[in-house]
Amino acid sequence: MVHATDTLPAALERIAQEVDCCFDALLPIPSDPRRQLVEAMRYAAIGGGKRMRPLLCVATAGMFDVHRDVSVKVGCALESIHVYSLIHDDLPCMDDDELRHGKLTTHRAFDEATAVLAGDALHALAFEILGSHDISDDPVTRSDLVSALARASGLAGMAGGQMMDIAAEHQIFDLPTVTRLQQLKTGALLTASVEMGAILGRVSSEARKPLRMYARDVGLAFQIADDLLDHEGDEHLAGKALRKDALAGKATFVSLLGPARARDQAQALVEQAIAHLADHGPEADLLRDVARFTIARKK
Amino acid sequence: MVHATDTLPAALERIAQEVDCCFDALLPIPSDPRRQLVEAMRYAAIGGGKRMRPLLCVATAGMFDVHRDVSVKVGCALESIHVYSLIHDDLPCMDDDELRHGKLTTHRAFDEATAVLAGDALHALAFEILGSHDISDDPVTRSDLVSALARASGLAGMAGGQMMDIAAEHQIFDLPTVTRLQQLKTGALLTASVEMGAILGRVSSEARKPLRMYARDVGLAFQIADDLLDHEGDEHLAGKALRKDALAGKATFVSLLGPARARDQAQALVEQAIAHLADHGPEADLLRDVARFTIARKK
Repeated sequence: MVHATDTLPAALERIAQEVDCCFDALLPIPSDPRRQLVEAMRYAAIGGGKRMRPLLCVATAGMFDVHRDVSVKVGCALESIHVYSLIHDDLPCMDDDELRHGKLTTHRAFDEATAVLAGDALHALAFEILGSHDISDDPVTRSDLVSALARASGLAGMAGGQMMDIAAEHQIFDLPTVTRLQQLKTGALLTASVEMGAILGRVSSEARKPLRMYARDVGLAFQIADDLLDHEGDEHLAGKALRKDALAGKATFVSLLGPARARDQAQALVEQAIAHLADHGPEADLLRDVARFTIARKK
Repeated sequence: MVHATDTLPAALERIAQEVDCCFDALLPIPSDPRRQLVEAMRYAAIGGGKRMRPLLCVATAGMFDVHRDVSVKVGCALESIHVYSLIHDDLPCMDDDELRHGKLTTHRAFDEATAVLAGDALHALAFEILGSHDISDDPVTRSDLVSALARASGLAGMAGGQMMDIAAEHQIFDLPTVTRLQQLKTGALLTASVEMGAILGRVSSEARKPLRMYARDVGLAFQIADDLLDHEGDEHLAGKALRKDALAGKATFVSLLGPARARDQAQALVEQAIAHLADHGPEADLLRDVARFTIARKK
């Protein structure tokens, strides 16, 4: 369970340690020629990132008294998918990025072939984690987790969103299309993070609906805040190159709405997200804090 | 069920049509900017390849009276993984291949970014298929299928084998290491094909053991035959570049054993594979034919 007393900074620090520890246990370095692959997976997966997806999963599962060691593992499956997508997005043929979380991107620290494979192996690792019997004795739960994660990672989720993002280099998207793009590219996995926490808590699909709506609003607010940070932020603090979308002529929430309306919109989404938690008491306070954090963060 | 009268050529033709039809239904072209991604997935997945993995899955499931439409879908999940791995293996940063199944590789026909994403989306599609309730009412079965496929695709399977294959460019592997490499790179998914057919048939893990040993031997025979075809074959007939391993100085079964001993070894493995089916009657004839086909094929 989430400690009722966890403040958000404490919760973020705690989940970061747990995720690092879980990846460390999942990825022992083999003494054969696969060594470099595992080193690249560890390089990308350990010691970086806000761990928003594991936090959302663990915070949601905590509302329904799920054992924390189980929800942390499921959080690592979500983070595995997230990290794989970052490795592939950073490749020269995609965004060609040099820095991520303040260190060299995986293909720069190793090489492109190793980076492609490390992404692929982390993609598979996510489903290996979910297939494992320690996640749940209940195979319905395990199977529902797999469906939710596969949907969030495929055509109707991250991969589809990334394709739209590439297409955005050649055409100017309007606000509904940018919204759809972001719902696929980042929203789907954030929604899956909350949904999978609730699946672990054996919450029915119908009863998960307000939680999904919370996650949808948080995901959009998070993305608008990302666009604002990208527009106004500090590259050193962000640990990655900024303003690449503007340079590439891509439409963003900030370019379409202007910074002031974008900020208002993000604020409204956070309030709406919190309103979806109205049926829950203090056990949902961490989710409320996460919603506020999406627009208060500095990186 | 597999028609008892299916000869191997008829069975190969039939499964090829079924797999194409299944991918066609799974991948409708969307009328949004994801269109190019789905076109690339269809380009790579439809109308090419021997469909050995779906055939092994369907032939095994047929021994245990599994509905053929279900085993074909699971076969498509296996083929999705296989096709994704071919797309990524062909990339410029990996094997840099121009031709596959007699047509341009996906990154040549589209572009590199689309090819990386098409591979990623096919990887996710495999798990979306397995998570679907039409595969089995029984969630234990669905969950066991996910575990088997994720293991075959990750570090302890295909991705790990591909990393060893890259490492083979810089060091000369001995026979046990080449054997291990091939068991990971191609053997794991072939074994999963048979195993997943048996899981659909609700065969216990213990009772699946001889089937796994059959698959292991068939997988090695298949790879030795591939090395022989690569050594002696016709590029036009193969539809891909040949003798790349020899040019790169990589050890293969043929370079380590010589063609004559390699051929004897493949023949012995086929006989051993068939011996593992001794407890089965004519319902296993298709698997016996597949074993013989691995070394009799011309491409």
